[in-house]
Amino acid sequence: MSKEITSRAENYSEWYNDLVLKGGLADYSAVRGCMVIKPYGFTLWENMRDVLDKMFKETGHVNAYFPLFVPKSLFEAEEKNAEGFAKECAVVTHYRLKTNPDEPGKLMVDPEAKLEEELVVRPTSEAIIWNTYKKWIQSYRDLPILVNQWANVVRWEMRTRLFLRTAEFLWQEGHTAHATKAEAVAETIQMINVYADFAENYMALPVIKGVKSESERFAGAEDTYTIEAMMQDGKALQSGTSHFLGQNFAKAFDVTYVNKDNQPEYVWATSWGVSTRLIGALIMAHADDDGLVMPPRIAPHQVVIIPFLSKNEEETQRMITTANELKSDLQKLGIRAIVDSDETKRPGFKFAEYELKGIPIRVVIGPRDLANGMVEIARRDTKEKSSYSVENLPKSIEQLLDNIQQNLFDKAKAFRDSNITKVDDFATFQKLLDEQPGFILAHWDGTAETEEKIKELTKATIRCIPLDNPQEDGKCILTGNPSKQRVLFARAY
Amino acid sequence: MSKEITSRAENYSEWYNDLVLKGGLADYSAVRGCMVIKPYGFTLWENMRDVLDKMFKETGHVNAYFPLFVPKSLFEAEEKNAEGFAKECAVVTHYRLKTNPDEPGKLMVDPEAKLEEELVVRPTSEAIIWNTYKKWIQSYRDLPILVNQWANVVRWEMRTRLFLRTAEFLWQEGHTAHATKAEAVAETIQMINVYADFAENYMALPVIKGVKSESERFAGAEDTYTIEAMMQDGKALQSGTSHFLGQNFAKAFDVTYVNKDNQPEYVWATSWGVSTRLIGALIMAHADDDGLVMPPRIAPHQVVIIPFLSKNEEETQRMITTANELKSDLQKLGIRAIVDSDETKRPGFKFAEYELKGIPIRVVIGPRDLANGMVEIARRDTKEKSSYSVENLPKSIEQLLDNIQQNLFDKAKAFRDSNITKVDDFATFQKLLDEQPGFILAHWDGTAETEEKIKELTKATIRCIPLDNPQEDGKCILTGNPSKQRVLFARAY
Repeated sequence: MSKEITSRAENYSEWYNDLVLKGGLADYSAVRGCMVIKPYGFTLWENMRDVLDKMFKETGHVNAYFPLFVPKSLFEAEEKNAEGFAKECAVVTHYRLKTNPDEPGKLMVDPEAKLEEELVVRPTSEAIIWNTYKKWIQSYRDLPILVNQWANVVRWEMRTRLFLRTAEFLWQEGHTAHATKAEAVAETIQMINVYADFAENYMALPVIKGVKSESERFAGAEDTYTIEAMMQDGKALQSGTSHFLGQNFAKAFDVTYVNKDNQPEYVWATSWGVSTRLIGALIMAHADDDGLVMPPRIAPHQVVIIPFLSKNEEETQRMITTANELKSDLQKLGIRAIVDSDETKRPGFKFAEYELKGIPIRVVIGPRDLANGMVEIARRDTKEKSSYSVENLPKSIEQLLDNIQQNLFDKAKAFRDSNITKVDDFATFQKLLDEQPGFILAHWDGTAETEEKIKELTKATIRCIPLDNPQEDGKCILTGNPSKQRVLFARAY
Repeated sequence: MSKEITSRAENYSEWYNDLVLKGGLADYSAVRGCMVIKPYGFTLWENMRDVLDKMFKETGHVNAYFPLFVPKSLFEAEEKNAEGFAKECAVVTHYRLKTNPDEPGKLMVDPEAKLEEELVVRPTSEAIIWNTYKKWIQSYRDLPILVNQWANVVRWEMRTRLFLRTAEFLWQEGHTAHATKAEAVAETIQMINVYADFAENYMALPVIKGVKSESERFAGAEDTYTIEAMMQDGKALQSGTSHFLGQNFAKAFDVTYVNKDNQPEYVWATSWGVSTRLIGALIMAHADDDGLVMPPRIAPHQVVIIPFLSKNEEETQRMITTANELKSDLQKLGIRAIVDSDETKRPGFKFAEYELKGIPIRVVIGPRDLANGMVEIARRDTKEKSSYSVENLPKSIEQLLDNIQQNLFDKAKAFRDSNITKVDDFATFQKLLDEQPGFILAHWDGTAETEEKIKELTKATIRCIPLDNPQEDGKCILTGNPSKQRVLFARAY
């Protein structure tokens, strides 16, 4: 292989970084904790974004854009939210540079261009948006507001990891305003369902939907719904959240509406988001020691066609022509196909490269196969190679893409389900987390103290209280206090 | 009318602001100089972005994403570029807030969280991108790099105007790297042609393509190509620029490649961009005293269908059903149509509202017309109302949208062409700018001093030296020194 990938067994974390860097998804940058999303990674993100955006629009949402900066006085208005994010805020204090008199050719911050009020680079946009909604909402006729924004946000993290935790990341944040609590709760649940649908049916990523414990809630929310996915190392990755914000932001920003009885009421709010972090989930759910494995529905390229090139020019030209015809036939079915007829690279090099990139299907067009009306197809997920008839080939490939999509989901789900364990004593709980990490369903006494203590002792957190959780009597795994249900524990990214 | 719009004659500048605010395109925000792009304005931007993005991809470009922040030491590496933007830079100096001990509930910048090196919020991304390209480029095989980024940028402007000049704005910036000068120049010209194509064929905005004088070049460029459009007040609006950057950034960031002869060479660069500023151009080119006028190809909604509502419930239901069927038939042709069957608003109110929003076609479905197999159609551009047969109505509407698109372009072009004047003496030059503003073609001696002096005296700048400019002997309008060609002067946004 051209580019060596660390194996999962050898070093899981290096394996992940190798895939991101050598797979061409992203690169480190000169800015601490910020990454460059390379074209291949960005095309993946575009495909994910386009699917999500369509889902948002189908559920009645529209896009808008709000400022990058939040004046400090607005940022601090909702106290819990402010407290939650204060430690991670990049702050703009000046609006001009000037030439440095002591160092020719260098610049310095102009001390005379200090802002009267500092500007926080948005870590999330509730504050700036609710300050705007105040102007937009007077009557019940102005509600609901169903707005989404695709944007960059900044959270100054001390330990960063490509895609999983970067100082700047790309995301979407929905911010809705409603006349009633019931409507806002329904919106919150609708959006976690949209996220679960997207994760499972496009990313092939099985998720558990649930509600966060109070300690794990979004700062400023009354309830946080989450989807949790299992990575190949058994750790959990929070893949999307939807928050019921109650009237907290309406009260902080004094946003009221006049109801049908002509009475003023505070507005109810939700917010919900997913980010480029999902790309990290995608990698760790499906990739293997040979590289990335892209789920067909969002893969940047779904099919790579490699014509066999030889010294026989006429034959080579015929192979290239056949490859291009197939590409064009696939494109007519809406399939994203590319042809690699680069004669400076050998087939083995190309095979390894496209395995690394995780392209779902590789088609090799060779003269001998073609004489028999066949081509060779390799699927990335199982590595199986088969001969396919050129008759109805585009349709066969379309079908195979569906199979691969389903297989990736099934495989990830089987892995996850076999790594969820019910545990009833703390010694087993600790042992399992160390020796065979996965999700653990265990009883918890419902207190933040116990939750914190378990985290200290095991690094495991409550990922969620699953929706439709079966109710059963039991005893808290740590304190032995009574409990009515098991909750989902795991170590997490 | 529900919302009063200042007329152009009364106050052009207030007319513009009224359209932006009352037309629902954008709103002021709590952050100085930053605006909120409202859903209607953002949908317009999405439509523009989607067309441009497709054009970029068809010319071989791919999207990527680079960090929002530029470390000061990188920012200052290309000196001319740094000098050009230093005065407009928002600077992040700290990465944390903390609770203010003197004011309970308030936050303050944590002085202990000062960054070792300040971060500039990108006013443009050449520096961060070329610092990245250094890692990506070793050999001629790595070239060309044809990358575009859709992003927000910040330029701290003292006097801001909605869309036209805001501290934060959205744009795309293409950044390409090439092995040869000829290739980079060809790319620069290709992209100004893409912009002109987009402006003329989608925005219905006639533009003059040309090259900037040295003083008006992008900071760090060797040549800046521009498209210049005329607004209804006769002023110019620079609508897109494409820069040939020579080897300036390659030298500043030491980006070389090994050519086929195994020799190191500096890489050649271009960059090119258009921004949300284009929305300002759109407004000022087409709108009238009743509101916005959207060119059909990028209009958020192309057709609004208004069923006639009466106390006859059966009839009303029939009108609504007919309206929805028409909408669905239009959508099958890819036409963006909406139905307004809100019974709390009267037709007159709705007509005014959709005129204000600039929806190209309004269809009224009334029982009397319908009994005769007809509907009433009003076109926004000419305000003409006509009866149309329901036979083949979707096709008639499709045709009418094309007519409107063409008419908007023709009208704007006729206006512009009738306001371009050749002038040969300075008194007329000054008088014309004051009394009947437009574009002036005049001789210039080619010096920066004369250019500056003319600007001081008249506020007019050289917008460009048009491409394929006819060569003729003449005398500079100000100095009388010899000149070989006329250049395009105007006051500008």
